[in-house]
Amino acid sequence: MKKHNFSAGPCILPQSVMQKASEAVINFNNSNLSLIEISHRSNDFVEVMENARSLSLELLGLQNKGYKALFLQGGASMEFLMVAFNLLEKKAAYLNTGTWSNKAMKEAKLLGELVEVGSSKDKNFNYIPKNYSIPADVDYFHCTSNNTIFGTQLNEFPNTTTLKVCDMSSDIFSRQLDFSQFDLIYAGAQKNMGPAGTTLVIIKEEILGKVSRTIPSMLDYQVHLNKDSMFNTPAVFPVYVSMLTLEWLKNLGGISEIEKINNKKAEILYAEIDRNPLFTGFVPNIEDRSKMNATFNLIDTSLSNRFNQLWNEAGINGLNGHRSVGGYRASMYNALPIESVDILIEVMKRLEQKA
Amino acid sequence: MKKHNFSAGPCILPQSVMQKASEAVINFNNSNLSLIEISHRSNDFVEVMENARSLSLELLGLQNKGYKALFLQGGASMEFLMVAFNLLEKKAAYLNTGTWSNKAMKEAKLLGELVEVGSSKDKNFNYIPKNYSIPADVDYFHCTSNNTIFGTQLNEFPNTTTLKVCDMSSDIFSRQLDFSQFDLIYAGAQKNMGPAGTTLVIIKEEILGKVSRTIPSMLDYQVHLNKDSMFNTPAVFPVYVSMLTLEWLKNLGGISEIEKINNKKAEILYAEIDRNPLFTGFVPNIEDRSKMNATFNLIDTSLSNRFNQLWNEAGINGLNGHRSVGGYRASMYNALPIESVDILIEVMKRLEQKA
Repeated sequence: MKKHNFSAGPCILPQSVMQKASEAVINFNNSNLSLIEISHRSNDFVEVMENARSLSLELLGLQNKGYKALFLQGGASMEFLMVAFNLLEKKAAYLNTGTWSNKAMKEAKLLGELVEVGSSKDKNFNYIPKNYSIPADVDYFHCTSNNTIFGTQLNEFPNTTTLKVCDMSSDIFSRQLDFSQFDLIYAGAQKNMGPAGTTLVIIKEEILGKVSRTIPSMLDYQVHLNKDSMFNTPAVFPVYVSMLTLEWLKNLGGISEIEKINNKKAEILYAEIDRNPLFTGFVPNIEDRSKMNATFNLIDTSLSNRFNQLWNEAGINGLNGHRSVGGYRASMYNALPIESVDILIEVMKRLEQKA
Repeated sequence: MKKHNFSAGPCILPQSVMQKASEAVINFNNSNLSLIEISHRSNDFVEVMENARSLSLELLGLQNKGYKALFLQGGASMEFLMVAFNLLEKKAAYLNTGTWSNKAMKEAKLLGELVEVGSSKDKNFNYIPKNYSIPADVDYFHCTSNNTIFGTQLNEFPNTTTLKVCDMSSDIFSRQLDFSQFDLIYAGAQKNMGPAGTTLVIIKEEILGKVSRTIPSMLDYQVHLNKDSMFNTPAVFPVYVSMLTLEWLKNLGGISEIEKINNKKAEILYAEIDRNPLFTGFVPNIEDRSKMNATFNLIDTSLSNRFNQLWNEAGINGLNGHRSVGGYRASMYNALPIESVDILIEVMKRLEQKA
C-alpha cells in the first residue's frame, strides 16, 4: 500500500533519490564497490562532496558572494554550540520562538551574555514575536526560521547591521528569500535535504576569526573550511543522498518552482483546517503559520480514535503532533506530493461526514 | 569484475550487510517506507538503536558490568575533545603512537596538562613504545590501540589503577581482549563496524560527573546516556548498518571466531612480505605489527608501476600507503575475505617472477 509520509523529520525524500541511494549502496558509479566501502578521499567521493557544497550555494543564490558551504556532523544541536564558539565574544541576541531557539540559547549561554529580544512563550509559541529591537552592541542576532513543533514560520527577518545567524533546519530550500541577508545559515539535513547524519552550514567566510578564544578543531568552522569540509571523515552516505536531493531540486527548477508547490500544499490544507468545523489550527495568525508543518487539533477530542483510524487506513504516516502541542501535525516538506495532501483533506472531510 | 577492497577506511563491509542496507533504503521492515524517511523516535528505529547498543556490549563481553554504549556523531576526532571535556580535570597521560594519538593530544591540551608517557616519533612511529610509566596523579591514561597509517598495534596495555581510555577506531571487534580493563572505549564506525557517520562510545558510567567544568550538552556523555543515545537525531543509516554488521559478527560466532580469520589473513600476508625479496615490511618488530593494516614497501621503487598495474588488473582496490609512510598498505578488516589476501599474495609472487 502506498504511504503518505507526513513525518516531521527525518522525513520523506524524493522517490528517485531513494532509488539511486539504494543502488549506490551496492554499486556506486559502476565501480563494483559500494558507496559506503570506498575512501572518502577517493576522487569519486570528493566529487560528491564538492557537488553537494556547490549545489547548496547555487540553489540559495549565494555563489560568488563570499559564502562557503560545509557538510558537518552533529545536527543543528551541534551548531547551537559551534555558532557561539565561533562568533560569540561578549553578547548575542536571540529570538525565542520555541524549543529549538531555547536549546540554541542554552548552549550559547555557556560562552557569553545573551539577550532574548523577543519571545512567544506566553502563548506556548503559537505566534512569531514582532516589533522587537536588537541592541547595537551584540556580536550577532540568531533566529529559527521555522518551528517544527509549533508550526510557526518567520516571514520577516529584522533589518539590522549586526551579523545575522539563522537555523533553517526545517525550511531551507523550501522558499525564496534573500539569503544574502544572513551571515551564517545552518540546517540539519533531515527535512528538505537528506537523511539524518549531516548538517549543512553556509558561512560568509569574512565573519570568522574575530573571537579571542581558542576553538577546538572540530568546533572551528575555519578548520573545516581549510579542509574543504574533509577535516575528518564525513558522513559519506548522508552527504551523498543530500547531493542527490539537491540535484533533484535543481532539475525541478530550483527553489522558485518548489515554492509554488509548497504554497499550494499549505494553502489547500490550511483552507480545510479553517473550513472543517471539527478542526482548529494551532496557530491563529495566518501570517505566522508554517508552510512546512501545519499544526491542528480536533475540537472534540472524543473523535480522535475515529480520525486516527481513518488516516491510518488511508496509508498516512507521521501525523501525530509533538507531545508539547498535542493534536496533529502535517509536515509538508519539499518531497511530499500534493496528492498526499489531497488524501489527508479527503480523510478530514470523511470524518466530518461521519461525525 | 569482483573487487578486492583493501581500503583503510571507510572500508569493506559484509556483502549481506550491504544487501540488507540497500533494501532498507527502499523498504524498511516491510513498512513501505524507507529507513531514511521515518522518525528516529518510531518504534522501528528505537529498536535498531537499542539492538546496536546492546550488541556492542555483548560482543565485547561488557554486559552487566556497569558499561553503556552510545552511537554519537563526529567520528573519533570529536571524541578526542569529548574525552577531555568529560574526564580531564588537571592532568592526563597519553601514549603517542602516531597521527591519531597526536590529534587526540592536541584537543585535550586545550583543557588541561598532558604528559606524553611514551612516543615512537623517533622512528616515524614504526614501533610501539614499551616500558613507560604512568604518573599516579593523572586523571586518565589514553592510547590508540591500532595505528592505521603506520601499521602498528598495541598488544600489551599498561596495568594501571588510573582510568584507561582507548581509541579503538580501527581494530574494535577484531580480536579478543579483556575489554573490562578499559573505562572508556571509542571507535569511529567506518572500519569494522559500519559506514562513516557514527561513532561508538562505550563508557563505564561511574567515571562520569567528576570534573568541575560545565560541559556543553552535545559534548556531555551523561546527557547522551540520559537520553539513551537519542538526545538529538542520530545518524539513522550509519547506526542501522552498524547494527547489521554487529548481527553478522554475532552470527559468525563473535570476536573469537573473526579473530581466527584475522590472524590467518595477517599471518599469510606478513609471511609473503618477509619471504618475497622484492618487499620489506614497514614495521620491523613482529610483535608490533598490526593485524588490521599491513604496511610494506618495494625495495626497488622502479618496480612500482609494474606492481601497481598488476594489482589493479587483479581487481585490488585501496592498496596505496598513506602519504606519510608511502609504499603500500593492505587493510584487512573483519569483512575482507581471505580470498582477497590470497589474490594479493599471488600478485606479489607474480611480480617476483617477472622481475
